[in-house]
Amino acid sequence: MHDLIESVFIKHFSNNILDNQNDAAIIPSASADIAFTTDSFVIDPLFFPGGNIGKLAVCGTVNDLAVSGAEPLYLSVSFIIEEGFRIDELEKIAESIASEAQKAGVSIVTGDTKVVNRGKCDKLFINTSGIGSIRKENLHISKAINIIPGDIIIINGMIGDHGMAVMNARESFNFNMPLESDCTSLNHLISAILNRSPVKFMRDPTRGGVAAVLNELSGKTGIGIEIDEPALPVSKSVKAICEILGLDPLHVANEGKVLIVASEDCAKDILEVMKNYEYGKDCAIIGRVVSDHPGRVVLRNNTGGGRILDTLSGDQLPRIC
Amino acid sequence: MHDLIESVFIKHFSNNILDNQNDAAIIPSASADIAFTTDSFVIDPLFFPGGNIGKLAVCGTVNDLAVSGAEPLYLSVSFIIEEGFRIDELEKIAESIASEAQKAGVSIVTGDTKVVNRGKCDKLFINTSGIGSIRKENLHISKAINIIPGDIIIINGMIGDHGMAVMNARESFNFNMPLESDCTSLNHLISAILNRSPVKFMRDPTRGGVAAVLNELSGKTGIGIEIDEPALPVSKSVKAICEILGLDPLHVANEGKVLIVASEDCAKDILEVMKNYEYGKDCAIIGRVVSDHPGRVVLRNNTGGGRILDTLSGDQLPRIC
Repeated sequence: MHDLIESVFIKHFSNNILDNQNDAAIIPSASADIAFTTDSFVIDPLFFPGGNIGKLAVCGTVNDLAVSGAEPLYLSVSFIIEEGFRIDELEKIAESIASEAQKAGVSIVTGDTKVVNRGKCDKLFINTSGIGSIRKENLHISKAINIIPGDIIIINGMIGDHGMAVMNARESFNFNMPLESDCTSLNHLISAILNRSPVKFMRDPTRGGVAAVLNELSGKTGIGIEIDEPALPVSKSVKAICEILGLDPLHVANEGKVLIVASEDCAKDILEVMKNYEYGKDCAIIGRVVSDHPGRVVLRNNTGGGRILDTLSGDQLPRIC
Repeated sequence: MHDLIESVFIKHFSNNILDNQNDAAIIPSASADIAFTTDSFVIDPLFFPGGNIGKLAVCGTVNDLAVSGAEPLYLSVSFIIEEGFRIDELEKIAESIASEAQKAGVSIVTGDTKVVNRGKCDKLFINTSGIGSIRKENLHISKAINIIPGDIIIINGMIGDHGMAVMNARESFNFNMPLESDCTSLNHLISAILNRSPVKFMRDPTRGGVAAVLNELSGKTGIGIEIDEPALPVSKSVKAICEILGLDPLHVANEGKVLIVASEDCAKDILEVMKNYEYGKDCAIIGRVVSDHPGRVVLRNNTGGGRILDTLSGDQLPRIC
């Protein structure tokens, strides 16, 4: 259904800026260009280990701006609330929004509230839209140009934490393992990286996970990508639960991760910057751009064997964000 | 509940820009200032005489920008869709969005789609956020300053059409009267007015109707307002249905109306501009600012008698936008 819906919108709304289909739209301007993004959050449950829908809504929009190379500045927050929703829970969510916005250094400047009758929405949905300013020298980042064989692919830490933490909280599996969402705003980290080193491409691997971002990148540019499976940072808990449930951490959503493509000679600088951040300490080079199998992502295992890594056709985990 | 919720958000999100509590946030910038606004639409039914949720979502956000004195430029559109929603209906809604955006001269530059399980939302909700540019000379408009006794209050046409058309469609009253929403983008009209005449304040009387806007204005500024009841443009159908249902058209939502406060000597110019537009032809001077009863809105009837016009405490008509 999702693909069908997307095709409807693309057909009707087509224009030069939208057709780039990045997480944030880049709007040309006389001074600094403007990045503009929107996301609706329908996560279930509203509260999960490591965050809640409010924190997530801020991080999600801040990160969409940051990975496009923009400095996130202003957010809107719009609520659709089911009648009878507990005000103390709303308070907690509002507190998280305010606190995460402060951490990220963004201002919430406009908002809206709609209340619908009981049963007409599932407790609470939040939309955040965001504006950032983007310097000319960072305009190429969301375009994924000049990527060549030999470029490396870096991630700032463990994958799959968000999706598995939310799923565990929702389904009450009660796995006795530490599982916490990685939900965090990445703009300060990304800004530090951009101040230190050139970057060719960035994207936050949320819905669809790392596999979706890599496949989109290779599909769009025609480059081949090789991922070194043993190099992938995955926590023991996520690995274990994924094995039990038959899931691949590469398809699981993250909310505090950024995938970076850069020249090999930039790797040292980028990793050094990442290691200065709590949410960058498990960073790793996870793969590289290759001249083989153009337009395809291949996963190499310990013994050198390879298999094609595809995007999942459906939503593996619904309402994860 | 609505007031309670608002107070939670104001408490947690307070900052200089948000605290102005206008329909659009004004963000200072080196060149032209930026206006930024957001609205979620939960209207029921999705299709109504004169429009649908898609057209409404564009008009609502375009108008929020326009009444703040900004030129609307870019929109985001975000959908929350109930699983199983009919694709042909989604097509119609997407078509309306595209067509209204084109009429208004705005580009849809970014979007998002979430699908939730059956029963977890009521068919379809849409969030539109918008960015406009605002010239320095129009910055005062949303601030409502310099309003003095003698200033006049103008509206561009009939009131209450949107609310009554939606209610009639929803409740299947089957009143045999022509009832159509006034849903339209007002930015071209407003821009023509601003090019011709100074304006002291503008606002679109949506949820809560004309009464809500006037009360907010008088409450915020401390001015007294007198409305000339016989001068209010109300269609026969709206008048009749309001009488039957015990409603006051002044409390009913509009989606193609703008209330303007201006000096008396600007009235002729403003009315002349309005009359050039299909949706301005029933324009009228409906009242004036007075030195009596500061902070209060008084309705004068045919015989010169007066009564205080309050805002309704609850939502008279839920899910009207």
